[in-house]
Amino acid sequence: MRAAIYNGPGDITVEEVPRPTIDAPTDAIVRVTHTAICGSDLWFYRGESDREAGSRVGHEPMGIVEEVGEAVTSVEPGDRVFAPFLISCGYCEFCRKGLHTSCVNGDSWGGENGGCQGEYIRATHADGTLVRVPDRHADDEDTLRSVLPLTDVLATGHHAAVSAGVGEGDTCIVVGDGAVGLCGVLAARRLGAERIVAMGHHEDRLSVAEQFGATETVAARGEEAVERATELTYGGANHVLECVGAASAMDTAIEVCRPGGTVGYVGVPHGVDEDGLDVFGLFRGNRTLRGGVAPVRAYAEELLADVLQGTLDPAPIFTKTVDLDGVPEGYRAMDERNAIKVLVTL
Amino acid sequence: MRAAIYNGPGDITVEEVPRPTIDAPTDAIVRVTHTAICGSDLWFYRGESDREAGSRVGHEPMGIVEEVGEAVTSVEPGDRVFAPFLISCGYCEFCRKGLHTSCVNGDSWGGENGGCQGEYIRATHADGTLVRVPDRHADDEDTLRSVLPLTDVLATGHHAAVSAGVGEGDTCIVVGDGAVGLCGVLAARRLGAERIVAMGHHEDRLSVAEQFGATETVAARGEEAVERATELTYGGANHVLECVGAASAMDTAIEVCRPGGTVGYVGVPHGVDEDGLDVFGLFRGNRTLRGGVAPVRAYAEELLADVLQGTLDPAPIFTKTVDLDGVPEGYRAMDERNAIKVLVTL
Repeated sequence: MRAAIYNGPGDITVEEVPRPTIDAPTDAIVRVTHTAICGSDLWFYRGESDREAGSRVGHEPMGIVEEVGEAVTSVEPGDRVFAPFLISCGYCEFCRKGLHTSCVNGDSWGGENGGCQGEYIRATHADGTLVRVPDRHADDEDTLRSVLPLTDVLATGHHAAVSAGVGEGDTCIVVGDGAVGLCGVLAARRLGAERIVAMGHHEDRLSVAEQFGATETVAARGEEAVERATELTYGGANHVLECVGAASAMDTAIEVCRPGGTVGYVGVPHGVDEDGLDVFGLFRGNRTLRGGVAPVRAYAEELLADVLQGTLDPAPIFTKTVDLDGVPEGYRAMDERNAIKVLVTL
Repeated sequence: MRAAIYNGPGDITVEEVPRPTIDAPTDAIVRVTHTAICGSDLWFYRGESDREAGSRVGHEPMGIVEEVGEAVTSVEPGDRVFAPFLISCGYCEFCRKGLHTSCVNGDSWGGENGGCQGEYIRATHADGTLVRVPDRHADDEDTLRSVLPLTDVLATGHHAAVSAGVGEGDTCIVVGDGAVGLCGVLAARRLGAERIVAMGHHEDRLSVAEQFGATETVAARGEEAVERATELTYGGANHVLECVGAASAMDTAIEVCRPGGTVGYVGVPHGVDEDGLDVFGLFRGNRTLRGGVAPVRAYAEELLADVLQGTLDPAPIFTKTVDLDGVPEGYRAMDERNAIKVLVTL
């Protein structure tokens, strides 16, 4: 089968690789039909985080179940399914409490399970991981395009909003205008936020934020941006969604958070080791830092219901579509910020 | 009047200084009768944080109201009062929501208000800051010894427990066996914790922790301590009280926190800028970091009631008592860890 491979910074190619097989009774093989390129993929693409050369990439899978192990009960061949960016068992302490990202039996895509930017993947713990798209929606391309972000960015933006404690009538600030930040805006609106201030650097993305429910946008940078957002919220918001992960964005989020407020953060921390985190800014104002790697699986059913009924639609984040051969071009477009997020159809 | 003065690292003297006066109608002058030396005073005493030479020290006041401005209504001359380590107005947005440490009209001890390790202090915003000890308890030395920790450490330990989300039947870990950590144990027990694991380095302090309600203690250091606490809690506690502030203690707190759990932190962050904070440890396990500088004033009435009825008694943290002239010796005893906390009676 063919799959995208990371060879080194800036170098992704599509190669012939071994197809994963059913090794355990809880495995399922999924033929990938849709996947995406993630903002977090850019960290290794830009050489800013380590990744083994020759490794398989992609962690946002949707497809058709091809084959299942004998213990799998929740899906069968032919089913349209999607899955979170991590594999989870569904029955351990952490899965039961909705923290699937801390699953004690957890596994990941890549390696022998196959990267999701490839033709086939193996879901170990298929029952705990795969989510069925109901048959009546299973072949509707428009719907599938709206469902795919449930594999990562929509649920991650939702986790930021939930972690920040966004509720009815609240004012919140969303730091970051990438796909996760835009999904954070969608999620905050869905949770009832009355005012949503979106902070970013790109006018085109901030206009998507407005389409998604942002009531105000701040396109400035640095101190000017902090001042503007603080002014708009009369001293900072009680609920701030940090949707980038870079140290500078974390610090911005802390700065625009009102004393006693909460920063919900979901961006993979990046540069925080070197640049530090403004712990004293948190401490002084009793600002809570809550969040982490999004337990996407926990939110799947709830968000899927809204997507299928048409009241939640993240599809506008996909501003470019490529096929498997176009994956290297997709990375380039993301890297050069010519696309918010790239959809890959196989 | 006479007051303790910081001259430089390791150098505290008692000097003649100007007595504070009523400058505004909301001021009160308090004759200090009891105060204390705080673990956080050791940071400047040891030269580990900056402080101006010649500055007045002490931030844990109890005494008798000497004089009040004409707008003061809640106390009158002769009243026994205590006050938090910060001055707050009592009526701004943040005071109203119980976050007195973010008071927009806030002020601090020291400078012309006088340090609390001195004969007289000025409480600007007396109505918002001073807490009356009911007359029937106002002259009972044993009771006053138990009330004094409400100025800082008892309420700070309580803030750690509240921030960590400790409730009925919970298992929690307390990092630190200083006065705040010990008060954290007391507070956790008061909030209904069923298992309290106290981590520290001093057998004598850990025995006070047991007296205060710790069900287990861990006296080991470094990785061994983390392993032991993790083992005792079958994988970490959902509620961790960080009561030190040093970077290493913050990291320990994160390490012994169960995925999805909360670290309630109240120690003034120290060394976190240089050594960094394990943000990725928080992120990976969706561990919440909540807390900050304790809004002691918010907890005063609630905790005072328990202290006065005798069900909450932090007095054993005072293992040494000095008079005003003995303050320099008190700092030495704290610095050399010959005293958990020093009571100063004037």
